Amino acid sequence: MDSPLQPLVDALRVFAAARDWEQFHTPKNLACALSVESAELLEHFQWLTEAQSQALSPDKKDEVAAEAADVFLYLLQLCDKLGIDLVAAAQAKMLVNAQKYPVDAARGTATKYTEL
Amino acid sequence: MDSPLQPLVDALRVFAAARDWEQFHTPKNLACALSVESAELLEHFQWLTEAQSQALSPDKKDEVAAEAADVFLYLLQLCDKLGIDLVAAAQAKMLVNAQKYPVDAARGTATKYTEL
Amino acid sequence: MDSPLQPLVDALRVFAAARDWEQFHTPKNLACALSVESAELLEHFQWLTEAQSQALSPDKKDEVAAEAADVFLYLLQLCDKLGIDLVAAAQAKMLVNAQKYPVDAARGTATKYTEL
Amino acid sequence: MDSPLQPLVDALRVFAAARDWEQFHTPKNLACALSVESAELLEHFQWLTEAQSQALSPDKKDEVAAEAADVFLYLLQLCDKLGIDLVAAAQAKMLVNAQKYPVDAARGTATKYTEL
Repeated sequence: MDSPLQPLVDALRVFAAARDWEQFHTPKNLACALSVESAELLEHFQWLTEAQSQALSPDKKDEVAAEAADVFLYLLQLCDKLGIDLVAAAQAKMLVNAQKYPVDAARGTATKYTEL
Repeated sequence: MDSPLQPLVDALRVFAAARDWEQFHTPKNLACALSVESAELLEHFQWLTEAQSQALSPDKKDEVAAEAADVFLYLLQLCDKLGIDLVAAAQAKMLVNAQKYPVDAARGTATKYTEL
Repeated sequence: MDSPLQPLVDALRVFAAARDWEQFHTPKNLACALSVESAELLEHFQWLTEAQSQALSPDKKDEVAAEAADVFLYLLQLCDKLGIDLVAAAQAKMLVNAQKYPVDAARGTATKYTEL
Repeated sequence: MDSPLQPLVDALRVFAAARDWEQFHTPKNLACALSVESAELLEHFQWLTEAQSQALSPDKKDEVAAEAADVFLYLLQLCDKLGIDLVAAAQAKMLVNAQKYPVDAARGTATKYTEL
């Protein structure tokens, strides 16, 4: 894996090993942590209008960035444990999405592909 | 931003624009989608033991990789809308975590930093 | 516990026992399932405006009702496993909330109590 | 609706009205809050083994009960806004589940009904 994210993944391995945290980092637990952090990010938006969510204060944006980082760090660790190349998986998923949502059928609608 | 993830971000912009989906992609909505996809990933693990979660079949691993990709793609789009450099945010958060969880205090325990 | 929800709890016990599912229903796993079902409910709303979310079609409302039921059934099972009386806990939490959010300070604002 | 939960629902209406919070309580926002609270509940379990999750300390159980209450209170408010009778929906869903998961096919397996 020569992913551009490998330096981050390596740093996360060192961080966890230094704290003897690999014992907690099973894929199941990392998947739990990923959901928890995603919800902490969502919490910042739950009472905002969509318009307000587009005009965050600098302080609020910093808080959201820290939550986005948490989501990303757990996602990287989960993929590392499972041997998933996240960038390659994302590229593959974009090809799948292009087929699920053809431009003509999907233009301007948020309808799920199963109902297009 | 010369992030290694910029090519993916650019591709996501093109994808959304071609479908006129920017109208749906407010930060609030993308945060909702991020939580939803994280939970779809978690669904694969909810009834597994931790040991089973470490020994996924190749088919199941492919399904998890596709969910991880969905999480990543929404996270990238959310950060793009908010002007957050995800890799830089992750690096900054790792420094914060190193201070919150000093090696000596955190070794071998999953206790939250607020209770260390 | 003479909770008004006891008949539902009893039915859930019989349902799980008949399928030998108690082995899967640890508090941790039920908490995972609760989060997964809550996200499935949220999925119905992720691309809607707030106004659209107030005017669901009858079909969509039925789908949301089924997801709300899933959330409730896992919540009841989790509380049953932990010996938590859900209605009593809800009543206690409302008293806590009344103190966290005094009417005068909280009127018309969604600010979290920690920042009021 | 003569639901056994009506007194709680009525109390929640009074609570929100006194604080002029109905403006924030759209179904979409309540669905977000429900997911956020479910994740806060899950956070208590994310690093625990399944066995540890069955042996919470009294203090931890109280914290989980408060999170369960939060989930329940948002679920009740969401259903109230949408005109969903939660207990009736739960009873209906149990009948659906009984058909999706026949005792003989489902005994001792956590396989999803779509794959039974």
